[in-house]
Amino acid sequence: MSRQLLVQNPWHGYALDRYVLRDGSVGPYYYIDMPGSCASIPVFADGTTALLRVWRYLLGAELWEFPIGGMRAGEDPLAVAQKELHEEAGLLARDWTMLGRFAPYKGASTERCHVFLARDLAEDHQQLESSERISVHRLPFAAARAALVDQELGDGQSLAALALLDRWLLRGNTL
Amino acid sequence: MSRQLLVQNPWHGYALDRYVLRDGSVGPYYYIDMPGSCASIPVFADGTTALLRVWRYLLGAELWEFPIGGMRAGEDPLAVAQKELHEEAGLLARDWTMLGRFAPYKGASTERCHVFLARDLAEDHQQLESSERISVHRLPFAAARAALVDQELGDGQSLAALALLDRWLLRGNTL
Repeated sequence: MSRQLLVQNPWHGYALDRYVLRDGSVGPYYYIDMPGSCASIPVFADGTTALLRVWRYLLGAELWEFPIGGMRAGEDPLAVAQKELHEEAGLLARDWTMLGRFAPYKGASTERCHVFLARDLAEDHQQLESSERISVHRLPFAAARAALVDQELGDGQSLAALALLDRWLLRGNTL
Repeated sequence: MSRQLLVQNPWHGYALDRYVLRDGSVGPYYYIDMPGSCASIPVFADGTTALLRVWRYLLGAELWEFPIGGMRAGEDPLAVAQKELHEEAGLLARDWTMLGRFAPYKGASTERCHVFLARDLAEDHQQLESSERISVHRLPFAAARAALVDQELGDGQSLAALALLDRWLLRGNTL
């Protein structure tokens, strides 16, 4: 029925919609409104990957994660995935495969996350923003999978990305 | 340095923190602040599960999902998981196993999701709120897994919950 943008910041909008419920009454819906995000799973020719260790301010914890970054309006998912892989992991990839999409926070965000497999990799330098604390760790893929799955507080987005990689592998593809 | 609650609604707070960056400057951080959420994976004695088909207003789509619901301050994760399984799936469970925790939206929400395995199930009636459009589908577990993994836009939280179930199974447990 109506949409009100309550806050706009450089990363996302925070909005309030009023919409008609099944019983005919009008309900409020508060949510984060943003174009999306792009994650990549880098895999080197030797079967290793580059996993990130990221300080997450909101959780007061360091998490193991795949590279991920937010999109701005009008940006191309692949271009954002390439930029984030370069900035966060210091990697350049020449071979990109779309693995799928998921909604990380369906109840309170419009965000759709696009997941890519990044291969044919070359190492360059990280380019971090002053707000980012990220270290890069090159690991055999099985060790990276264990690091993601076994941490006390998992990163939901990396676990969902792994599920999309496994779907691609189950369809007969190989790394 | 400072915390400002910009919006408080029945489901979450939306806040702005100002904090000191590595370079000494002060950065703003906008985020959803909430106690957490609880998801459950119901498994019947015959190996079937109950998967939900949920209309997600923010995505304009129906998603396959495991039951999940938000916590309010001071609530117990298990009690919330029990309440949500009853309300959304119409199920009562007598056997509960904690599978783990993940952060669904680490960059813009403090939410931690607690994941439970729910067994020894009895069927009761759904108790939906007027804002909820949810149908319940009893499926063999492999079919439910395929429904979650194969959808065009996946539910990141259900995929992360599946990863925690698989971790538990890999540790030698059985359903």
